[in-house]
Amino acid sequence: MSQHYSSVLLEKAVGEFAKLPGIGRKTAMRLVLHLLRQDTERVDAFSQSISTLKHEVKYCRVCHNISDTDICQLCANPARDASTVCVVENIRDVMAVENTQQFRGLYHVLGGVISPMDGIGPSDLQIDSLVERVKSGVVKEVILALSPTMEGDTTNFYIFRKLAPYPDVKITLIARGIAMGDELEYADEVTLGRSIANRTVFTGTL
Amino acid sequence: MSQHYSSVLLEKAVGEFAKLPGIGRKTAMRLVLHLLRQDTERVDAFSQSISTLKHEVKYCRVCHNISDTDICQLCANPARDASTVCVVENIRDVMAVENTQQFRGLYHVLGGVISPMDGIGPSDLQIDSLVERVKSGVVKEVILALSPTMEGDTTNFYIFRKLAPYPDVKITLIARGIAMGDELEYADEVTLGRSIANRTVFTGTL
Repeated sequence: MSQHYSSVLLEKAVGEFAKLPGIGRKTAMRLVLHLLRQDTERVDAFSQSISTLKHEVKYCRVCHNISDTDICQLCANPARDASTVCVVENIRDVMAVENTQQFRGLYHVLGGVISPMDGIGPSDLQIDSLVERVKSGVVKEVILALSPTMEGDTTNFYIFRKLAPYPDVKITLIARGIAMGDELEYADEVTLGRSIANRTVFTGTL
Repeated sequence: MSQHYSSVLLEKAVGEFAKLPGIGRKTAMRLVLHLLRQDTERVDAFSQSISTLKHEVKYCRVCHNISDTDICQLCANPARDASTVCVVENIRDVMAVENTQQFRGLYHVLGGVISPMDGIGPSDLQIDSLVERVKSGVVKEVILALSPTMEGDTTNFYIFRKLAPYPDVKITLIARGIAMGDELEYADEVTLGRSIANRTVFTGTL
């Protein structure tokens, strides 16, 4: 249904917001009218934040994580364990792992997973630079932390083969099993089977 | 939960998006990373559209609708019936009525409804300018098209009293009744009672 905009400027702004994923024209209108009610400084801060990010953002030369500097804060931090590298699909996954506060090593952001359906092959990902990092000799363990999907596993196998020439480097996979709070009866057979096969010794505490 | 951003620029942009209504930090992150994947021109177009709108937008001197010019396209259109003025709460309501293609008159955008709870009194709304428009003598009918809420009805009564000195001007209210597709048994008593009291002659067509 065509909307009747009384302002071309309004129509343009709504059109731009409506291009964002998951934002329809009604939501776009609501967001634009909300911004229009704010002070000019607030609107300019909003507008500039995204423009500045796009123009000035860098990606870490080592791990390809998003960064304000050539080497990201994580890679530059001497307190982090450089011998353990956690391979993740994207920036959000770095944050997800960081939020667990369970990992003190470094990351390697692939920038996606191998997905022939989407035309994404190994050369589109930061796999060669991962091999280079491993080759340098500092890395003792590579943790593969990709999503347990067809594409994630394809990528896991590919990296595994690529790292085969370096047998001193341990390659590990994040545990797969029943997620906290999940009902056992609704778990799929593969997950449940694997969670039994990979059972851990219960010491009386969790 | 605090997020671990590896880029201050990213954190700022996500923070700005997260200030929008109905956008949480996770959605904000998704939107910002989506924009980051676009071309620089696309991001600049997005950023500029909202900034330009805020800096250059005008409100129609006559009906207070959003406009690119001093007098909006609707008020400036000689094909519209200037003797009928439809009073609405906001810009979105103008669009909603326009989308019905059932109305050929002009609008008057109040900019809200009387709501003592939110500290909005009659002087915060474009009611005086409505009275001025009526006083000018061109207007023959004022259609009150506010939402049938406590605040909407308070505003309806207030406008009705303000327009009492102009008995030649007909004041009408949009019909209240059962919405298309609604189940009768779930309608509230007030709506159902009113829809019976205000029944219309059925001519064999709808």
